[in-house]
Amino acid sequence: MAVEALIFDVFGTCVDWRAGGAKEVSRMAGAKGLAIDAASFADAWRGRYQPAMEEIRSGRRAYTELDVLHRENLDATLTAFGIDDHFNDDDRAELNHAWEKLPPWPDVVPGLSRLKPRFIIAPCSNGSIALMTRLAKYGGLPWDCILGAGIARAYKPDPQTYLASCAALQLAPKNVMMVAAHNSDLEAARHAGLMTAFIPRPDEFGDGSAEHIPSSGWNHVAEDFQELASQLGC
Amino acid sequence: MAVEALIFDVFGTCVDWRAGGAKEVSRMAGAKGLAIDAASFADAWRGRYQPAMEEIRSGRRAYTELDVLHRENLDATLTAFGIDDHFNDDDRAELNHAWEKLPPWPDVVPGLSRLKPRFIIAPCSNGSIALMTRLAKYGGLPWDCILGAGIARAYKPDPQTYLASCAALQLAPKNVMMVAAHNSDLEAARHAGLMTAFIPRPDEFGDGSAEHIPSSGWNHVAEDFQELASQLGC
Repeated sequence: MAVEALIFDVFGTCVDWRAGGAKEVSRMAGAKGLAIDAASFADAWRGRYQPAMEEIRSGRRAYTELDVLHRENLDATLTAFGIDDHFNDDDRAELNHAWEKLPPWPDVVPGLSRLKPRFIIAPCSNGSIALMTRLAKYGGLPWDCILGAGIARAYKPDPQTYLASCAALQLAPKNVMMVAAHNSDLEAARHAGLMTAFIPRPDEFGDGSAEHIPSSGWNHVAEDFQELASQLGC
Repeated sequence: MAVEALIFDVFGTCVDWRAGGAKEVSRMAGAKGLAIDAASFADAWRGRYQPAMEEIRSGRRAYTELDVLHRENLDATLTAFGIDDHFNDDDRAELNHAWEKLPPWPDVVPGLSRLKPRFIIAPCSNGSIALMTRLAKYGGLPWDCILGAGIARAYKPDPQTYLASCAALQLAPKNVMMVAAHNSDLEAARHAGLMTAFIPRPDEFGDGSAEHIPSSGWNHVAEDFQELASQLGC
């Protein structure tokens, strides 16, 4: 086994962004007496995620940290829900921190804790170093370091995000394994030369509908992080 | 208390580079039947550290990770000790990993463990992300993320090293405290707007001769990381 580091997608793969986002939306909207569907709000907010990054991936906009994109997307979502007037600037800043308070799936912390003695473990997310650091503190994710867009200044699936993460560890891509619940993430990682592991998270969208079939012959397919640790002999 | 993150010098402040370096030199030289003064070798190797970085700080050389500089400095030190012929390329690569196997001072892991629940804690070292990550795994340093030269692509005391570290956390410098055993490091950090804490490590050079008098009115002066944690209410 030549793999020395495991790098992880985070939103969806490690943490339940939908439940965590909806909880914060519900808390703040409730305090204002607003009756909105918090899960729908979280979905709409997240729905603006890929288009916002695409502006940067395409070169139309300079690299901008995800926290800023999340805030712009929040502003647009508040407008779309017709509740702009209820959220001042401080409220919006507070709500934007929802992304730092997302609960890990139950197997994540015990699984990472088993993997950590044997491998370097790090997020390879589109989240910033600031966001990933605070999210890890919130959920107790025992990362060894923070990799991903924050050091690459490029958004997945740009190959640079994976390659800069490997380079930061001074490892060849073949000695690094990308772990994700999204086939497209693994396609891009494999194209960049990394090993791959698919962990389905069918409840990412709250209803069992998220992709749970591996689209390709990934190096590992496991039910959750605990099973991945077992497969890797941890 | 507006400080949200503590960032740390590592070589000398967190870990005993001299003892750790000498141990690896002794181990490898001993296996080859070479009788050399391992501590003197470690001192000579480390003695080339600042001049090598100065080439980069001055702009005469592009940013090059510290691991590469350490290797160049190792090669030069082997020559200076007249033992070039005894170390092939693999030996040198192995010995260069000595920098990833340096023992923390005894108060460091318990002190950081007390500070971590309240503050973001991270190295702000001239070591690369790869080096800092492996050193943390070796010694059990419970960092939240890796900051410093690896993300700034600049060597302390260049202000960019401190400022990029604060920026990566999306914190103003006044909300970040630099912790170091070297007054010059704190001078530069304060000049960049950070808070400062001085922890003397008189045995950095093995003989009690290292600087242990604070040269200025730092925000905190503590005997070790445990006392710093107490001063900060942890």
